[in-house]
Amino acid sequence: MTRKASIPLTLTLERGTDVSLQQQLYDQVRDLVLSGRLAPGTRLPASRLLAADLNCSRNTIVLAYERLLAEGYLEGRSGAGTFVSAVLPEAYLRATRPAPAGARVGPVPALSARGLALAGLLPGASRAPGPAFTPGLPDLSAFPSDLWARLVARSARRTSLQPSPGGYEPLRRAIADYLRSLRAVRANWQQVLITGGVLEGLRLALDVLLAPGDRVWTEDPGYPPLRGPLTAAGARIAPVALDAQGLDLAAAQAQAPDARLAVLAPSRSYPLGTTMSLARRLAFLEWADSADAWILEDDYDSEYRYAGRPLAALQGLDQSGRVIYLGSFSKVMYPGLRLGYLVVPPHLAEAFGRAQQALFGPLSLIAQPALAAFFEEGHFAAHIRRMRALYRARQEALLEAADRELAGLLEMTRAEAGMHLIARPGCALAGTSDLELARRAAQAGIDVPPLGRHYLGPERARGLLLGFAALPEETIAKKARVLARALAKELPAAG
Amino acid sequence: MTRKASIPLTLTLERGTDVSLQQQLYDQVRDLVLSGRLAPGTRLPASRLLAADLNCSRNTIVLAYERLLAEGYLEGRSGAGTFVSAVLPEAYLRATRPAPAGARVGPVPALSARGLALAGLLPGASRAPGPAFTPGLPDLSAFPSDLWARLVARSARRTSLQPSPGGYEPLRRAIADYLRSLRAVRANWQQVLITGGVLEGLRLALDVLLAPGDRVWTEDPGYPPLRGPLTAAGARIAPVALDAQGLDLAAAQAQAPDARLAVLAPSRSYPLGTTMSLARRLAFLEWADSADAWILEDDYDSEYRYAGRPLAALQGLDQSGRVIYLGSFSKVMYPGLRLGYLVVPPHLAEAFGRAQQALFGPLSLIAQPALAAFFEEGHFAAHIRRMRALYRARQEALLEAADRELAGLLEMTRAEAGMHLIARPGCALAGTSDLELARRAAQAGIDVPPLGRHYLGPERARGLLLGFAALPEETIAKKARVLARALAKELPAAG
Repeated sequence: MTRKASIPLTLTLERGTDVSLQQQLYDQVRDLVLSGRLAPGTRLPASRLLAADLNCSRNTIVLAYERLLAEGYLEGRSGAGTFVSAVLPEAYLRATRPAPAGARVGPVPALSARGLALAGLLPGASRAPGPAFTPGLPDLSAFPSDLWARLVARSARRTSLQPSPGGYEPLRRAIADYLRSLRAVRANWQQVLITGGVLEGLRLALDVLLAPGDRVWTEDPGYPPLRGPLTAAGARIAPVALDAQGLDLAAAQAQAPDARLAVLAPSRSYPLGTTMSLARRLAFLEWADSADAWILEDDYDSEYRYAGRPLAALQGLDQSGRVIYLGSFSKVMYPGLRLGYLVVPPHLAEAFGRAQQALFGPLSLIAQPALAAFFEEGHFAAHIRRMRALYRARQEALLEAADRELAGLLEMTRAEAGMHLIARPGCALAGTSDLELARRAAQAGIDVPPLGRHYLGPERARGLLLGFAALPEETIAKKARVLARALAKELPAAG
Repeated sequence: MTRKASIPLTLTLERGTDVSLQQQLYDQVRDLVLSGRLAPGTRLPASRLLAADLNCSRNTIVLAYERLLAEGYLEGRSGAGTFVSAVLPEAYLRATRPAPAGARVGPVPALSARGLALAGLLPGASRAPGPAFTPGLPDLSAFPSDLWARLVARSARRTSLQPSPGGYEPLRRAIADYLRSLRAVRANWQQVLITGGVLEGLRLALDVLLAPGDRVWTEDPGYPPLRGPLTAAGARIAPVALDAQGLDLAAAQAQAPDARLAVLAPSRSYPLGTTMSLARRLAFLEWADSADAWILEDDYDSEYRYAGRPLAALQGLDQSGRVIYLGSFSKVMYPGLRLGYLVVPPHLAEAFGRAQQALFGPLSLIAQPALAAFFEEGHFAAHIRRMRALYRARQEALLEAADRELAGLLEMTRAEAGMHLIARPGCALAGTSDLELARRAAQAGIDVPPLGRHYLGPERARGLLLGFAALPEETIAKKARVLARALAKELPAAG
């Protein structure tokens, strides 16, 4: 029944290519099997013989065989050797070649309106990071990567593979401690739910608190990424202008009196940096309580404050369980970490935890113990302190460079916190839209998003966002010159 | 202006407690600062002096000071020492104590109907793993944890901290290769989007393809966790019965003719294990094309097949770009990994990628390179091969134990694939509901969910699910005896 072993003469291994010998062997044997040139039941040569024949290490043969065995092309019979599988997956013969990208038959199926809206939210193709002044980018080169890698490795070795609902308890405790002492958040650790990033946390809160079609007040201008989860959750966004005290509650109530949720960044609005006054905070809490509504506090930027006293979170003033507090580690740690947290009122902690399990399943365990250790061993506090000093100096460098290089073109004033400045067009650029200014800058490789992109309602202020956190001071000076040339290039010569 | 340094006499460190000396020092200094007993501007003793005074290592003092410095309680003046901050965060004085859990004023705010539905989806409190026979649990003790930890550590050291849209390219390529050769999926790597778990992938697909209120056919009985994302996306679920060929298309069309999506597990339905016939597959594809609808193929269980040839995916038959293929690594690797993938039609890859960015932001990078290496170095194939052999033996052990211990109580037949068996109540238990049987088992520490819990429509079959993958063979035999006693305990004595 068993065919004799035969060394397939067509096998040839090429040295010095990108493809490993093992992969070449795998590919060739698989092709022989699929094409029927090696029939089901055929015995393959022993690895030792084939290795000698092909002049390669026996290990190469063994590994290629193992993969073919695992994938069902070959089968082992104990004591008898390795054979082409008797029950060959014939169905594969039809479908081993991938369809060419874009090839299809018939009309293109259309996405839902929601799908089209979601796909259209991002401005242009995803940007590769790198261009100067991109706002919101931390300095990844200053992140203690080696230390972090050690913590991750230790975490991967020691941690149980079984996830726990709500997140890894020591991390929840560390975050609760941190928020209590640094942000005056009132919470025990059970109220802290670890999330797979700030957008997942936002989505969870929207799913749990809102019905589709509910009105939501958002700050205008505001943080564009919040629009994705709001759109997907079926919220009707009512963008409300800010005054000097923060989001204008009276305007909001006039504009959309039936709102069920306000999404606020009271410590520091994005991108303008407005801090909400205490009186306004109390008024919002009163509104939420009397309107049976919710407040989502996005405390995205609280770590990097360069002047004045740290600001307490709105959440700490909430007596009625109306505030959901939203945090993230993307900026303090690095964007690819994708860990964040929600702080929910005590009586909602269980419902949120259950909804999170139902919606997203268990949370990844790899980074959580590492981050808990990063907190517990004091690295988090130390990292923030280092970054704060670094970013403060970089802001100063940008302000100096602006004075020197960009006078008359862009005007910036010192920010008390955060990772970007707002640059207002100077007299030399009066009458030029910020979209046009951003376009000119982009042509010179500089990524300074226009303020206009952050508005959903009528645009009220022109400006560009300049991130300073990721650039060394000497680069800031150099890029400011490049930006000046780019912005000025279409100006008439002076005189 | 600066007050003299004074060693606070109230500082005392207790040895032999759970709280580290550093933490004790931090807590006490912070309390002194917050209570005003250490006034703003007060100079703290040099670390060397305080260490001598408290009889502890200088490092303890330095670390506690560093944390207090980072958090703004203390400030350093270069060359002059460490001082209580002049701009003390007074706001903290109000809010340093957490609210007791559950404490609140006024009426309890109510969740939305969607929120209540989501919070109510999970059966009971989240179960700690451990009870015997829990279905869907892989054997974590057989997972190559040390190897995995090495790969994660390497990945953490080498990887750029900057995430890439759609996922880590080498992982997308490895998955595309795997699916092409093992599942006959037709896809290039650009069609593969890495997701943060199977539920995130499902959610993304629902958000992109459906409008709220759209009808969705689901298999009945089916996989309960799918209900979370479906509920949250506002889908109206139309549960459809299965016949021997899989989900009954004619019944589905009669029941909900306007459906826009069918969620199918054609290779193997959950939990009954029905395989969809080729004729039925082609009929579904034709339906999707003519109704301008979509098919979500959940290929949750394809790796562990013990008999017969591997089954090709429905996706490989799709000529019109109507099938979204959904995969996960939770069962093949471990539940806490939370990585999965979607394979989308070529012309939708960009829209899906953009929507994913808008909804969830960048994907965590820590595990992706490790998983790519796990594929590339052949560990994935080897792991599946080992697990397949292990689980096959365990299924046999469960069948033998059932013959020996559970005769007349539960009847099981060999499954061709998967990690659980369906046990039908035998004559001795005729007339007892499967809910009651599951309750009896639970009292004996055995977790065998009733088949009834998997139905949304009218229940058609009684049974219990017995997972066999996570239990060693000797435990299976022992637990089968425990289960027999638990089920039989309310039976009248024979005779």
